[in-house]
Formats: sequence, C-alpha cells, structure tokens
Amino acid sequence: MESKRYKNCLQQIRSRATDVVDEKTGLVVKKESWKDLYVHVASKNNFPTAAGLASSAAGFACLVYALAHLMGAKESYEGEFSTIARLGSGSACRSLYGGFVKWNMGKEDDGSDSIATQIVKKDHWKDLVIIIAVVSSRQKETSSTAGMQTSVKTSPLLQHRAQSVVPKRMVEMEEAIMKRDFATFAKLTCADSNQFHATCLDTSPPIFYMNDTSRRLIGLVEKWNASEGTPQAAYTFDAGPNAVLFAPDDKVARSLLQRILYLFPPASDADISRYVVGDQSIMELAGIKTIDDIEALPTPSEWSGIDIPRTKGELGYLICSRPGQGAIVLEDSAALLDDATGFPGQ
Amino acid sequence: MESKRYKNCLQQIRSRATDVVDEKTGLVVKKESWKDLYVHVASKNNFPTAAGLASSAAGFACLVYALAHLMGAKESYEGEFSTIARLGSGSACRSLYGGFVKWNMGKEDDGSDSIATQIVKKDHWKDLVIIIAVVSSRQKETSSTAGMQTSVKTSPLLQHRAQSVVPKRMVEMEEAIMKRDFATFAKLTCADSNQFHATCLDTSPPIFYMNDTSRRLIGLVEKWNASEGTPQAAYTFDAGPNAVLFAPDDKVARSLLQRILYLFPPASDADISRYVVGDQSIMELAGIKTIDDIEALPTPSEWSGIDIPRTKGELGYLICSRPGQGAIVLEDSAALLDDATGFPGQ
Repeated sequence: MESKRYKNCLQQIRSRATDVVDEKTGLVVKKESWKDLYVHVASKNNFPTAAGLASSAAGFACLVYALAHLMGAKESYEGEFSTIARLGSGSACRSLYGGFVKWNMGKEDDGSDSIATQIVKKDHWKDLVIIIAVVSSRQKETSSTAGMQTSVKTSPLLQHRAQSVVPKRMVEMEEAIMKRDFATFAKLTCADSNQFHATCLDTSPPIFYMNDTSRRLIGLVEKWNASEGTPQAAYTFDAGPNAVLFAPDDKVARSLLQRILYLFPPASDADISRYVVGDQSIMELAGIKTIDDIEALPTPSEWSGIDIPRTKGELGYLICSRPGQGAIVLEDSAALLDDATGFPGQ
Repeated sequence: MESKRYKNCLQQIRSRATDVVDEKTGLVVKKESWKDLYVHVASKNNFPTAAGLASSAAGFACLVYALAHLMGAKESYEGEFSTIARLGSGSACRSLYGGFVKWNMGKEDDGSDSIATQIVKKDHWKDLVIIIAVVSSRQKETSSTAGMQTSVKTSPLLQHRAQSVVPKRMVEMEEAIMKRDFATFAKLTCADSNQFHATCLDTSPPIFYMNDTSRRLIGLVEKWNASEGTPQAAYTFDAGPNAVLFAPDDKVARSLLQRILYLFPPASDADISRYVVGDQSIMELAGIKTIDDIEALPTPSEWSGIDIPRTKGELGYLICSRPGQGAIVLEDSAALLDDATGFPGQ
C-alpha cells in the first residue's frame, strides 16, 4: 500500500471525526483526540491482489468505511466518503456501495464532485449471475493507476472516448439497469470493455492487460451470442487478464458455466471445490460434482465440428457470485483478525 | 481468390488494352481481340498466404501488372493501375511500386481518386533493414477485408482515427521518410500499428490479429528502445500476428536480430538456414551460423536480472530484407512457372 494514498484517506476521515462512545466499555474518545491517536490497521483479503480485479478498490473502500465507523465520521454531503476513498484508489469510490453504482466524473479540478452514487440496490436485479474467470493471479506488469495516467498523456483515442463515447453509454447503461434489459446491458458491457482495452493498446508504450486466454474467453461469449442471435452472456475485463462474466438468470448461468468448464477444464489432479468457489448453486444446477462430470460435458452446439484446444489448467479458478451489498460492519464472530493479537488469524 | 475481385481487375485492364506485337513470333493481338481471349493465370508465392502479411496485396499487384504488360494496357493518368489493383485488394495499390509508397484515401465515392503514389525510390533509404518475424502461418480467423468492413460499421473510435489522427500522421511520416529520420519513423510506425489494432479491438465483435507472441515481440522492441532512450527499432503488425520490424542500419539490425534470436530461439532440431531466410548479411554480421551460436548469445542488457521465458519454436521463421523495388517482368529463366505446362514448377 502506498503510504501517501493511505495517509490521505486517514487524514480526511480524521478531520470529519466526532465524539465516539465505545458501547462495551463506555470509553469516550473526544473528536479532537483522533488526530493524536495511532490506528493499527491489519487487512486480509481473499481475492487475487494487483491482478486487475479491483483489489485496491475493495481495500480502500474497506479502509475508509472502517475508519469512518471507528471515528464516528460524518459526511457533509451524500457521497463525501466516496470522494475520500477515491484518493486511495479511483474505483474505490464505487466499492463503498452495493448493487449497481456509477462513478460521476465531476467537473471540479480538485475532484470534490467526482463521487460515486448508487443506481439501484442489489435486490433490484437479483437474478443476475456473475462468474469471474481468474486467468492468472500473477501481479500485473502495469498498475492500473500508472497505466491510466500514461494513457491520458499518450493515447489520441482516449480523449475521444471520454468526451464522445462514454457519457452517452453511461446514460444508456443506467437505463438498461433500471429496466433489467440484459441484451442492452450485455452489448454495452462488452463494447465498453473492448474500447477500454483499445485505448490501453493505443497508449505509448502500449499496455496489454488481456492475454490469449482472455481472448479465448471473449471468443466463447461472442460465438455463443452470435449463434443464439441475442446476447446470452456478457464479459468485461478490468485492468488485468481475468474475465468478469454475466448471465441474466440461473438457467443461462448454468449454460455459461458448462461452456466455460468445457473449454477450460481444470487440471486432472485439481480439487474441484477449489476450482469453482463462491455461490455453489450454479454448479449444483449444472449437475457437476466431479472432474469426470466436466469431462463428460457435451460439446456446446456452436463449437461442434470445430477443432478447439481444451488446455487443462489454463484458468486458475472460477468465482460464482451475484450482485452484492456494499461495505458493512461484521459481527465480531465473523472477524478475520485475531482479537488478541490484532493480526490476521486463520 | 474471390472470383469477383479477379474479374474486376481483368475487365479494367482489358478495357485499356492496346495492339500488342509478340517479339519472338511477330504475332499481333489487336486491342479489340483481348475481350475475346481467355487468360490462363498460374500464380505461386513464397510467402505465408492469408496470414496478414499482405499476400493478397502482392498477388493482386502482380496480377494487374502482369495483365497490363501482356495486353499493352496504358494508364490514362498516373497511378490508374493502382486504382485497378485496389479493386482486388485494398493495399495492392501500394504494392505496385517499390521504395516508400503512400495510399491516398481520395474523396470520390467511386474510389477513382483513391490511388497509390511513390514517395521515394528504394535507394533513398537503402540502409534500412526489415526483419519479418513470422509468428504463425495459419490462416487468419478474420480476413482483413471483412474485418475492416465490420470495423467501419461498428467501431466508434475508427472514424475519429480516420478523420483526426491518420491525416496528420501521414504528413509527419512522409517528412520522416524524406529526411531518413528514424526516430520519428519508428515512433509513428509503432503508434499507428497499435492504433490500428486498437480499432480492431473496438469493433463488435472484437477482432484480434495479434496474439501473446506478438505482444512479446512488441515488448522486446519497447523495452530496448526505453532502455536506450531513443528508438533503436520499430514494429508494425498488419492484419495478422506477424511482426514487421525495422532497424536504421546493419549495425542496429545485428543487435535486433540477436535480441530476437535470444528471446525466440528456434526449436533444437531446427534447420537454421530455414529459420532465418532472405538477406543473409545480418546473420553473418551477427556471427551466427549454428543453433549453438544462438544458445551462446548473451542476455541483452535490458533483460538482465529478469526471468524471461525463452520458449523454443514460438516463432515460425524470420525473413531478413531491405526496401525493395516494385513489380517487374522477370527474365524467362527466372520464371517460377513451367513453360511447357503453364503450371507452377519446382
């Protein structure tokens, strides 16, 4: 964690602290005391770090939320904490809230109006299934923050994208989400992911986040969608090679998962419970319990007659998920930190 | 070869035919007879076909030039034959001429002013060395003609590129060539190659011509250039995964070839005379005669301390070349076709 980003977040929350009474002990920390107190921060995540899966966004959103809770900090306007999280990692502003969230670019030079707002809560589109295909958990060659700065400086296409393409797509996307219009959602999601990576390639020197495995995942979705005539699934790649895939409901998610497992089988000695993690309901629906079940999967119709490589172990693992809630304070019993030492347990 | 493209070229040349006297036999073909005569065309190339190395450009340029020569066709304005070659394959218009050639977009809807013109002859910049790294000779998934048509229809970035970026770069590139300014030539060549592939990625569905090996070749050049502070080499990728690499002179070309061979060694059982083909002078300068010489190459300074994969056989082969001449009629003795049968010999 870069010290400066961390300090920025801490300072901003400290300056908004209030008097806090500890429920258990009755101990009072006066708001003017927070500036003199040290904070011991221990963080543990169960997600690939710096692999382009918004790990820094999750981390900084968690940090800002936890500090604000600890110090009884109050927002002076709605979304102010998201502008503070943004100081740590741009997309952290979005990660504070659950459901569907948009990041408003803002106009001010100081970034004070660059805030995230929730479009709808997680229950608005609860049928949606998310499958993350982790291609590689290796650290990226280019950090997304440094990469974006180089793109802004050197890509002739980025400015055009930011000024002429994205604002229109933001309006269309918000409408698609409100209507739960999966076809439009999928079209915009894929097109915008590809255009983001196009501007990375247009950067000097060029930035490549996707690799040949990412391309094969795109091929899987595009070929399926073309064969059905309407979007079945959508893909998006953040600043890394891993795919975030969407399906409109459990039934389609089952077909998607079967396709992924057919084209990207685990290594023969893999532990299947570690190959597909998270929400297990789609695996159950697909009737897959063992590696043998994966090897028995029929060729998806759109691939029949095509000689495709089924390289085992090309994917690291899969995470099945659904739209989630934002930052929350867990019960003590759910803590990942050891209360006695203050360090990560387990 | 698609029949319609071929017929278009044939018809256009036929309509410009003149009376032709065969030197050997004295036989006269009157210009009005050409429309009734059949033409037997047999073509052989020594280049990967449909792999994104302008094989159709070379083929159609050759066809148009040969037909024009056979039928004594005359241009009514300079460059007219290039507009005819363009009907076969867009970039064929450029392949008629040697040295450095530009393709003027033109303004007319019928394409009549979309012609190629020679900027300078091949001797203007004879120090330039060209190394083509053939990544794969497999046929492409997307033909470049079909790909470009889909991009024009679906890429929001392509129009911006065509209207706002390319015209300026064309002027700068012509100036760089006139001045033999390698640094500017390299910067523009790499940036424009990347931007072309960016618009392919911005296409729906996205088009990928480059693969992970292409990316590693880009990394080789970018890392070297960054380490030296000025461009040593340049790369460009046409509609395929193969790299066309440029070095300003023999000395730098030797360093470039050594780097390519270090990072992309041939398979252990490869025949080195088939691994590096074409102009052998750079191989001689690099002192490389055997696979052992390649294995003994020192790590390039910019890669020292970095754990890089040196996967043998990742490249198919390399072609060393220099700026060449345009289409010419060869002596009978150099013919690749058997005079007796009219079919490809050898």
